[in-house]
Amino acid sequence: MTWVYLIDLFGTCVFAISGVTTAIEKKFDLVGTLVIGFVTAVGGGTLRDLLLGNLPVGWLSNRDYFLAILLGYVLAYIFKAQALEFKKSMFLFDTVGIALFTVLGIETTRKLGMSVEVCLLMGVVSACFGGVLRDTLTNEIPLIFRKEIYATACLAGGMVYLLLATVCPIRAVNIGAAMATVFLIRYFSVRRGWSLRLWV
Amino acid sequence: MTWVYLIDLFGTCVFAISGVTTAIEKKFDLVGTLVIGFVTAVGGGTLRDLLLGNLPVGWLSNRDYFLAILLGYVLAYIFKAQALEFKKSMFLFDTVGIALFTVLGIETTRKLGMSVEVCLLMGVVSACFGGVLRDTLTNEIPLIFRKEIYATACLAGGMVYLLLATVCPIRAVNIGAAMATVFLIRYFSVRRGWSLRLWV
Amino acid sequence: MTWVYLIDLFGTCVFAISGVTTAIEKKFDLVGTLVIGFVTAVGGGTLRDLLLGNLPVGWLSNRDYFLAILLGYVLAYIFKAQALEFKKSMFLFDTVGIALFTVLGIETTRKLGMSVEVCLLMGVVSACFGGVLRDTLTNEIPLIFRKEIYATACLAGGMVYLLLATVCPIRAVNIGAAMATVFLIRYFSVRRGWSLRLWV
Repeated sequence: MTWVYLIDLFGTCVFAISGVTTAIEKKFDLVGTLVIGFVTAVGGGTLRDLLLGNLPVGWLSNRDYFLAILLGYVLAYIFKAQALEFKKSMFLFDTVGIALFTVLGIETTRKLGMSVEVCLLMGVVSACFGGVLRDTLTNEIPLIFRKEIYATACLAGGMVYLLLATVCPIRAVNIGAAMATVFLIRYFSVRRGWSLRLWV
Repeated sequence: MTWVYLIDLFGTCVFAISGVTTAIEKKFDLVGTLVIGFVTAVGGGTLRDLLLGNLPVGWLSNRDYFLAILLGYVLAYIFKAQALEFKKSMFLFDTVGIALFTVLGIETTRKLGMSVEVCLLMGVVSACFGGVLRDTLTNEIPLIFRKEIYATACLAGGMVYLLLATVCPIRAVNIGAAMATVFLIRYFSVRRGWSLRLWV
Repeated sequence: MTWVYLIDLFGTCVFAISGVTTAIEKKFDLVGTLVIGFVTAVGGGTLRDLLLGNLPVGWLSNRDYFLAILLGYVLAYIFKAQALEFKKSMFLFDTVGIALFTVLGIETTRKLGMSVEVCLLMGVVSACFGGVLRDTLTNEIPLIFRKEIYATACLAGGMVYLLLATVCPIRAVNIGAAMATVFLIRYFSVRRGWSLRLWV
């Protein structure tokens, strides 16, 4: 049980919380919120594995992910009351989650012998498409396409990871640097209201 | 041609009717209604097979499913006029369909050597995600997340099936008990306005 | 590098333009428009390959598709200003694209030994589902289900192709005839306001 695995489970749990919270706001019932939590948590990695033919998808044979999602499900209902305070911590947790999911997505793809741009693409897909599915199923235009430079942060973090990996053999350092990149870009973009759009 | 296979085709046809009817109400054209009917009928099993890597998906190589869907397509247009009366029968038919789809989804998953919770999950996915895709494509928030305890009924039916299967070797009995469970839960939940939600 | 391959890339580029243009109108940011362009361009073929178990999906190992999509991305922003004039040419280009995608989808499916109706279905899926995903992700009811006889044109073109292929050994002739069929049906349907709907 490495720290990377622990953060992976942590990110899964955080993603589940984000999905369940969104579904509660939309007045879904107990089953609906569970489904949305599940889809948000595993959706990105699932799409990646489908496209790569890496089947059956990994989380099916790992009970830990189920437990992490159930934990997130319970936590979301418990902390629903203190939503505002909670959202600030969630921003931090969520950023940690997408940063690691980007790197893990890249590593999975590279092991299958794919080219650099496919690795980057699959990194972003792993990190972002859980949220896209969450928003599509709750009938929203996916948030990441409009408001935050979420996907860009993942792309930049993925590039940092791949570049560093060519010179530095220590995986922990490369992952750490990628995560820091994602965090800093998201932090400053939200702080200063950055957005990427050419026409209003 | 067993009775299970016949109910399978029957359920496929009923699901197609439900999809086509929804699409007609949304003013889709003849092609659009066919697509939605198709997606509703095979969507759940398709998602299950994708996640499990059980490819190519089964209905591609079975002409009977195509015919069942086309029959549902025609019936939906014919019976559109008597929509109200029709809806009551549809409730019954639909419940029979999801009950059997749950069990068949569980059996497919178990044959691939998956754990009990994955079997249950795939049972619910098989039964419910056709409807989720129907609602997503017609731009609705999926019904099963808001109004009915549809997925819960499938989950309960799936549990009954798996529990019974450990003690009773007669498949027909186990399937029958699971279907009765799904039916009773749905019937009483609609009758008495049950719903599963913690906050309004 | 045959002319079929060139039209394939051309169609990919045109589909990307259509996706990016839609996303710009919805005020997506630079990343969002890229994602929608990507999904529109490869979505149909991806769904076909997923259903058939033809994995990893083909475009992952072909850099040309990435370049065609990036070109479409840039062109969409450049030509955004002259949208109206542009739309007329796009209609022509788009029709060429779906016609070829239908045929290529059929050929891919036939190579995997599928039956005639599965080939036709996969041809239509290849040509149309990129647009369906584009509309679903941008929270619209898919256009092809409501307004144009888009899918019908693909179906007719696919039938022409399969029929001709049984008598004529020259692939270019069969593809050409199928493309002409798709083009004529779409042209006259838009011209004369044809639509396929039984009830208003």
